[in-house]
Amino acid sequence: MSEKPTSRGVIAPMLTPFGDDGAPDADRFVAHGKWLLDDGCHALAVFGTTGEANSLSFEERKRLLEALVEGGIEPARLMVGNGTCALTETVEATRHALDLGCESVLMLPPFYYKAVDDEGLYAYTSEVIERVGDDRLDVYLYHIPPVAQVGFSVELVKRLAAAFPDVVVGLKDSTGDWNSVKAMIDAAPGLNVFAGNEVFLLETLKAGGAGTITATGNVNAHAIRHLYDHWQEADAEALQDHITSLRQTIQQRPMIPILKAIVAHYRGDPGWARMRAPFLALEAGDAAAGIAELEQAYGFKLEAA
Amino acid sequence: MSEKPTSRGVIAPMLTPFGDDGAPDADRFVAHGKWLLDDGCHALAVFGTTGEANSLSFEERKRLLEALVEGGIEPARLMVGNGTCALTETVEATRHALDLGCESVLMLPPFYYKAVDDEGLYAYTSEVIERVGDDRLDVYLYHIPPVAQVGFSVELVKRLAAAFPDVVVGLKDSTGDWNSVKAMIDAAPGLNVFAGNEVFLLETLKAGGAGTITATGNVNAHAIRHLYDHWQEADAEALQDHITSLRQTIQQRPMIPILKAIVAHYRGDPGWARMRAPFLALEAGDAAAGIAELEQAYGFKLEAA
Repeated sequence: MSEKPTSRGVIAPMLTPFGDDGAPDADRFVAHGKWLLDDGCHALAVFGTTGEANSLSFEERKRLLEALVEGGIEPARLMVGNGTCALTETVEATRHALDLGCESVLMLPPFYYKAVDDEGLYAYTSEVIERVGDDRLDVYLYHIPPVAQVGFSVELVKRLAAAFPDVVVGLKDSTGDWNSVKAMIDAAPGLNVFAGNEVFLLETLKAGGAGTITATGNVNAHAIRHLYDHWQEADAEALQDHITSLRQTIQQRPMIPILKAIVAHYRGDPGWARMRAPFLALEAGDAAAGIAELEQAYGFKLEAA
Repeated sequence: MSEKPTSRGVIAPMLTPFGDDGAPDADRFVAHGKWLLDDGCHALAVFGTTGEANSLSFEERKRLLEALVEGGIEPARLMVGNGTCALTETVEATRHALDLGCESVLMLPPFYYKAVDDEGLYAYTSEVIERVGDDRLDVYLYHIPPVAQVGFSVELVKRLAAAFPDVVVGLKDSTGDWNSVKAMIDAAPGLNVFAGNEVFLLETLKAGGAGTITATGNVNAHAIRHLYDHWQEADAEALQDHITSLRQTIQQRPMIPILKAIVAHYRGDPGWARMRAPFLALEAGDAAAGIAELEQAYGFKLEAA
C-alpha cells in the first residue's frame, strides 16, 4: 500500500454551506475546501456526518463533488462519503467518485435496518466492493454507532481487512471511546485508523494509528496539524491539552451549528450559518456568546479565507 | 376530508422481489400487488420497512412505482413511502408519486441524525409539505422508532395536524406498543391512525382508529380483512385471536425473510425468497420448517396468484 494524502494525518470532514434558496452552495464549498487545505489539512472528507451529507440528495452530493474537482482540488486529497442505506446507491456513489479520480471513500454501513448482524454487513460490504470492481478503490469503514446505530464490530473489521487487503485499508472510529479506537488499531496490521475526535490524537499516534478525521478540523486544523507534526516532541502533551480544551468549549453547543456560526462570523458571511432541516441554526445571540468564549479563553480566531 | 381507499382498512406494505441480477423485479412486484388487492387489501403501502425500501436507490423506487401504475393498479390504492433522510429527495419522491396520481404518502422522519428535536422535525416536515405545495397531498406520518430511532412525538403529531389539517391526515404507529397507538388515535380528531401490527386491530377499531398496515398482510390479508369487516360482531375476539396467533408463529423467524419464503413456496417460485444485503434469505430448511408449522397449526396456505 503506497502512502496517499488520505492515508494518514489530519482530515477535516467538510461542512456543507447552503445558499439563500436552500440548495448546497458549491462556490462557498470549494472555497472552504481550499482554505482547509491551506490551514493544515492533509486531506478533506466530504459527505460525512458533519457535512450534513445524509440531508443531501444523491444528485446534490454528486454535483458538489464535481464542483470540488472542477474547482481545482486534487482528487487524491478527497475521501468521499459513499455510504447510503441502499447497496445500489452506494455502488453508484463509489463509481462516481472513482470516475472523478477520487479513490478513497469513507463508507457508512447501511443504517436504516437495525436487526442486521455481521454476516449481513459482510455480505453488503463485500457485494459493494465486488460490484464496483475497481482495483484503485480504497475503502475506509465509517464506524459511528452513536449516530448510525449500525456499526462495524472488531471481528467484522478483521474479516473484511483479511478478505480485501488492498481495498479495506482503513477506518474512522467515531465511537468517542478510546478503547474502541485502540481495538480498531489493533484489529489488522497496516489498517489506517483515524480517531473521529482530536481528543484522542496523541494517543492514536502513539498506538500506531493514522491520525484524526474531526469535525473541529473545520475551524482549528492548524493547531491539530501542529500536534500531528510534533507529537514526538516534548510539548506534545501541552499541544494535546490545548486542542482538547478548545474542542470541549466548542462542543458545549450543538457541533454542526456552532461550527457553521464560527465560519459565518469570521468570514463576515451570515449565510454560511444556514442549516438544512431537521437541523436548525443557532440563535444569533447564542452563537455570538460561543464565539466570545472561544476568543476570551484561547484568543481563538479564524484566519481570513 | 373525503374517504379514500387509503383512509381506512387493511393495507399490506408490499414485499419487494428481486431478480437473478439482484435488481428489483417489477413483474413479480406488480403481480403481487394485484394478488394482494384480490386477497382483501383495501390498499397497498409501497416502499415501507417490509418492502426493503431503504435498501433501494431512489431510481429503483421510482421505476417500481411507475411499473405498478402502468401495470394497472389504481393510484388511489397506493400509499407511497416517500421519506428519506434528505429533505430534497423526500420532496422529489413526493412529487413523483403525485405526478403518477398517487396522493397518499407514508412519510418517515429523516432518520440519520439522532440529535434532532421536535422543532427540527417540525421544520423538516412543514418544509417538505410547503415545497411540494400540492393540495392533493395526503401525508401519513410513519412512526417506527424501533427501526428509524427518530420518531414523531404525540405533541409533534398534534402540532402538524393542526398546522396542516388537510395534508397531515393520518399516521402509522409501528411502536408495537398499544398505549402509543391509542395516544396517537387521541392526538387529533379525524386523524386516520393505523396500527403497524394486526395484533392491535380490534382494539384500534374500537378506539376509533383506521385499521392496520401490517407486514403479515402480505400473506394473510384475507383473514385480517375478515376481522376488519366483522369487528362489531360476536366472533370478533375469536377472529382477533386467530390472526394474532398466526402472526406470532410467523414472527418466530425474521419477518421479511420468512414472508418472502412463504410467497416463494406457495408460488413455486424460489427466486421470490431473495433478499438484498444487509438482509439475508432464510436457510431453505428453516424456511420449510416455518411453513410446515403454519400449515400444521392453522391449515395455512397461500392461495394461487
